[in-house]
Amino acid sequence: MSKDCKAPIGVFDSGVGGLTVAREIMRNLPGEDIVYFGDTARVPYGSKSKATVLRYSRQIVRFLKTQQVKAIVIACNTASAYALEDIRKEIEIPIIGVIQPGAKVACETTANGRIGVIGTKATISSGIYTSFMRRQKPDVQVVGKPCPLFVPLVEEGWIKDPITVEVAKRYLEELLQYDIDTLILGCTHYPLLRSTIREIVGEKVTLVNPAYETAIELRELLEREGLSNPAKGKEHPNHCFYVSDAAEDFRNFANSILPYDIEMTQQINIEEY
Amino acid sequence: MSKDCKAPIGVFDSGVGGLTVAREIMRNLPGEDIVYFGDTARVPYGSKSKATVLRYSRQIVRFLKTQQVKAIVIACNTASAYALEDIRKEIEIPIIGVIQPGAKVACETTANGRIGVIGTKATISSGIYTSFMRRQKPDVQVVGKPCPLFVPLVEEGWIKDPITVEVAKRYLEELLQYDIDTLILGCTHYPLLRSTIREIVGEKVTLVNPAYETAIELRELLEREGLSNPAKGKEHPNHCFYVSDAAEDFRNFANSILPYDIEMTQQINIEEY
Repeated sequence: MSKDCKAPIGVFDSGVGGLTVAREIMRNLPGEDIVYFGDTARVPYGSKSKATVLRYSRQIVRFLKTQQVKAIVIACNTASAYALEDIRKEIEIPIIGVIQPGAKVACETTANGRIGVIGTKATISSGIYTSFMRRQKPDVQVVGKPCPLFVPLVEEGWIKDPITVEVAKRYLEELLQYDIDTLILGCTHYPLLRSTIREIVGEKVTLVNPAYETAIELRELLEREGLSNPAKGKEHPNHCFYVSDAAEDFRNFANSILPYDIEMTQQINIEEY
Repeated sequence: MSKDCKAPIGVFDSGVGGLTVAREIMRNLPGEDIVYFGDTARVPYGSKSKATVLRYSRQIVRFLKTQQVKAIVIACNTASAYALEDIRKEIEIPIIGVIQPGAKVACETTANGRIGVIGTKATISSGIYTSFMRRQKPDVQVVGKPCPLFVPLVEEGWIKDPITVEVAKRYLEELLQYDIDTLILGCTHYPLLRSTIREIVGEKVTLVNPAYETAIELRELLEREGLSNPAKGKEHPNHCFYVSDAAEDFRNFANSILPYDIEMTQQINIEEY
């Protein structure tokens, strides 16, 4: 067993959305410590270019390495789309994103071979979900749809709201015309709108939450590499939260979606890394 | 006449919104050259802290000074609220923001002394419109309301749209209960929603657009300081556009709202300043 196995897992996102991934890691790998970083000073990534998202992601990876993490999860679809491939070549520790696990499960799930993907403009226009799925299942048909208003609606707290239902209808009805039977929630905020989305797409469409699939892939990866923490299910795993701005707002949002209240969030200047 | 009078005016914003201010400067000071900077790599500012917005604004001012600007306009309500006062003490050239001009005109306009202000979370929670107006008109009553969905709705292009009308109703009906007769559009994107806002608030409420008032204040300032460009109304003023990300997207948006098509937008790494 490697001496690294007691080290924490680094998880990062452009802001609060990645907490839905952290939450699944806490549920499914209860013995693991986590260092979470949310880039709240530069959020959102979804409307920005590949070069910028890659530069930001590299800075965050440098910060996480100062925290001696044993593995990194990019808990952000946009950063997974734009930065994972490059960064994987540059570092020695294992790193995974949220896209491949979601794409894999969607391919296994679909019966009619028609899969919808919703996400930020950047994630959808990168075409990365499509290329992962085509590699696994060449005849799959993928329809992507950017839903840029979903994140601000969630952050406004209008989760179950007639306006959110109208916006979701506008975005999703177009997808439904393609007779999809599987829909990937390709942005970490979207699982928070799951029940609204479910209402519109109906029971026949399977919703894939990449956050859950990523936690499962992380567990398998740690086991394969001999990096799992032996103290499985310990009572008080150590979860640290860092942000680049507005720690208090982050803490409030985190406490509304995590299974326990976090006590401290520390602000760092990410541009220095 | 100062030798600086032929120098350009620096105008900056967190992104594209400040173009509504640049547009008013072009209309009202047609002889002036402009260097515009949009911080598209770190947009939006409206949900970020004072310390972060001040740090970003200082970097931009350092960049604009390398362009030998003779004066600076902070064409962003959030940055005007959080950074103007500090930066004014740190530089030698004149600098103005969009808040004071809008606040001044609102005080002159109101008949019943009840003024509404809409803007980002940061602008509203700073309370800066209220404190400017109280200084000028101590008995004024000010009601502020953050409207965080307006910017993403404009950027989605849903300018005249039933969903935008519903969102605007939700935000504005609360304000109307206070019997306001004047409403400040306290975010540079909001003038683009003017007709939707007008429909909801009715004809009895005067809408104040700080972009226009800022251009007028800038003209007076340049005249007072002997900095006006003598080549008034020249046919081809020089307007340069810089951004920190996604120059192409910026250019498309700019071309949809400026009176002429801009040809070149240059991307710079603002973190280096």
